[in-house]
Amino acid sequence: MNNQFSFEIVHQSKKSKARAGIINTPHGQIKTPAFVAVGTNGTIKAVENNVLNKMEQDLIFCNTYHLMLQPGTKIVKNSGGLHQFINRPKPIITDSGGFQVFSLAYGSVCDELKSKGQKKYDSTVIKISEDGVTFRSYINGDKVVLTPETSIKAQKDLGADIIVTFDELPPYHVNQKKLKASVERTHRWEKRSLDEHLKNPNNQAIYTVIHGGLDRELRTESCKFANNLPFDGFAIGGSLGKNHEQLFDLVKFVTPQLEPERPIHLLGIGDLKSVIPCIELGIDTMDSSHPTRCARHGLAFTTQGAQKIVSIKNKNNFGPLDPNCSCSTCKNYSAAYIHHLFKAKELTAYTLATIHNVHFMIKYMKNLREKILEDKI
Amino acid sequence: MNNQFSFEIVHQSKKSKARAGIINTPHGQIKTPAFVAVGTNGTIKAVENNVLNKMEQDLIFCNTYHLMLQPGTKIVKNSGGLHQFINRPKPIITDSGGFQVFSLAYGSVCDELKSKGQKKYDSTVIKISEDGVTFRSYINGDKVVLTPETSIKAQKDLGADIIVTFDELPPYHVNQKKLKASVERTHRWEKRSLDEHLKNPNNQAIYTVIHGGLDRELRTESCKFANNLPFDGFAIGGSLGKNHEQLFDLVKFVTPQLEPERPIHLLGIGDLKSVIPCIELGIDTMDSSHPTRCARHGLAFTTQGAQKIVSIKNKNNFGPLDPNCSCSTCKNYSAAYIHHLFKAKELTAYTLATIHNVHFMIKYMKNLREKILEDKI
Repeated sequence: MNNQFSFEIVHQSKKSKARAGIINTPHGQIKTPAFVAVGTNGTIKAVENNVLNKMEQDLIFCNTYHLMLQPGTKIVKNSGGLHQFINRPKPIITDSGGFQVFSLAYGSVCDELKSKGQKKYDSTVIKISEDGVTFRSYINGDKVVLTPETSIKAQKDLGADIIVTFDELPPYHVNQKKLKASVERTHRWEKRSLDEHLKNPNNQAIYTVIHGGLDRELRTESCKFANNLPFDGFAIGGSLGKNHEQLFDLVKFVTPQLEPERPIHLLGIGDLKSVIPCIELGIDTMDSSHPTRCARHGLAFTTQGAQKIVSIKNKNNFGPLDPNCSCSTCKNYSAAYIHHLFKAKELTAYTLATIHNVHFMIKYMKNLREKILEDKI
Repeated sequence: MNNQFSFEIVHQSKKSKARAGIINTPHGQIKTPAFVAVGTNGTIKAVENNVLNKMEQDLIFCNTYHLMLQPGTKIVKNSGGLHQFINRPKPIITDSGGFQVFSLAYGSVCDELKSKGQKKYDSTVIKISEDGVTFRSYINGDKVVLTPETSIKAQKDLGADIIVTFDELPPYHVNQKKLKASVERTHRWEKRSLDEHLKNPNNQAIYTVIHGGLDRELRTESCKFANNLPFDGFAIGGSLGKNHEQLFDLVKFVTPQLEPERPIHLLGIGDLKSVIPCIELGIDTMDSSHPTRCARHGLAFTTQGAQKIVSIKNKNNFGPLDPNCSCSTCKNYSAAYIHHLFKAKELTAYTLATIHNVHFMIKYMKNLREKILEDKI
């Protein structure tokens, strides 16, 4: 699809479906498996890109929905594209905006929006039709039309290395008939997304979203649909179940049905309990705001599990948050100091904890990659 | 008073009382005139010390009142002192806690406290006597006794390069009789502070606070008191008037009465309108949370004055906040991006704007120092 994008499987584990790979993009390599940090508005929360750029965070996830509404994709385009705008020379993936807009339609305002806490207008979906979705901007009340074509055009303006097809996100408790209709519409929208993309590939790769909720037949259909079109990669989306068991069952069912030559992304999953099982099932990349949100809530990821930074035991802990960590937070500051910053509600608390958790995820994934190369997972 | 502290006047301007100097401390030099950034809780708000350390911010101001209550000065001491605790190898000054505790007593909760916005207990002064002040911690309601001796002990625990004597801060609208009594008590407290300090100088320098409000006789008395004791420097405090004119008049009246061999600090002043006039009147250092607070409120300091970052003209401004600025914010990010981050209420907005304003103040003072050396101001 594009000359500068390719996926190379470096090693297929003999022990599981886990694989170590390299995704080549116009802005450099992504070593897989990779955790993708979320930078909704073009910044990881509390860590400026100049600092993040020095870490081995190969790929970050920005949200088209948010960037469309603020600052607007034209401004990003005019500034020279998202990499230039946010000062990130490394790979970026954007989503289609579908997830956010449908979270609103079905009443479950997603975490990302909740965290804003500053809605001026009710975020209201006005109309959903075969063409797409019309909704009101939560920023200024403007009417916005999101269709496969406008989503792809917006993502062209942003210019991320990887873009995602526009899809419908049905609610969890939908009946089979409606789910089937939704998946079929999603497929039509994904085809329209692809067609729009191919008018001007612009050195971007396009991933398509595998839907079908927990319905195995629909998931199989969605895999077939995706395999048969020249998407550069797959993203498993839609309802992923209500617990880890359902998630793992679903991933286990889906990944073998996807063409193995293309990278597989898992949308919105990144808690530590999910990472290894999903990678063992063949997931190459996964994004989640979980590690950075945990950091802002005072949870430091360590090899001993997530630790509450404001725990009384850190009050006098003059060692680092994690003695095994080499991040700049652990190298420069004691757990007692960061404990103090959280107690004092200092903004730098969020910065230091976020740097730590992002570093943790990078190292965690690096370690898993080594294990795959040695057929140990 | 201490071997590692000295003040060297490099050049006395021929045009005004402005002087360029060097304050030597155990943690390095402070080139004067210097703006002192405020890091109340041991961190400049929104900028971690690891980043600040790379800037030429020679001196920062930490608040003993806040650090006593959270995390407690014993914890800081046990961690190896404030420099070690907060990861700052450069000079630090702490105040006595008097200012904050008396702001509470007289009902005008100072800006610093207002900005916390999270009081669990009413911050209540229980008793003011010749011994000192008893108040309740705004954090946990504990009774805390602040006297000249406990303040100096707390500042010994913290271990800043420069400490300040404990003083009484009378309200602005006090009558002459009460003001006189207050200044006299302050002088007794300052002498007790000095005595406590001299028991264990600990390589720290001690500044004393010049009081007397707008009463010229009392200010003169306070200068004489300070000149006659071996304080390492002076800090002009108390009521400084209600506008710039009163401030400048006061500084003009006070500085000639202080021994010229010792550095003169101006407490709590740092707005751009005040800097040059005060330096021309002989002020060597001045602290204020103004530049960093402005940054968090979206005001970028530039050679053209303070600019509102969310101004519509920055929406499409792909150049830096200030074309004449070489700070890491201006080198790495456009005004449009920072405009966007403020609009999106991203924490990194505060970080980038703060770095810019701190850099601006450093460069501004550096430039003034050059001008003094050339007898231009």
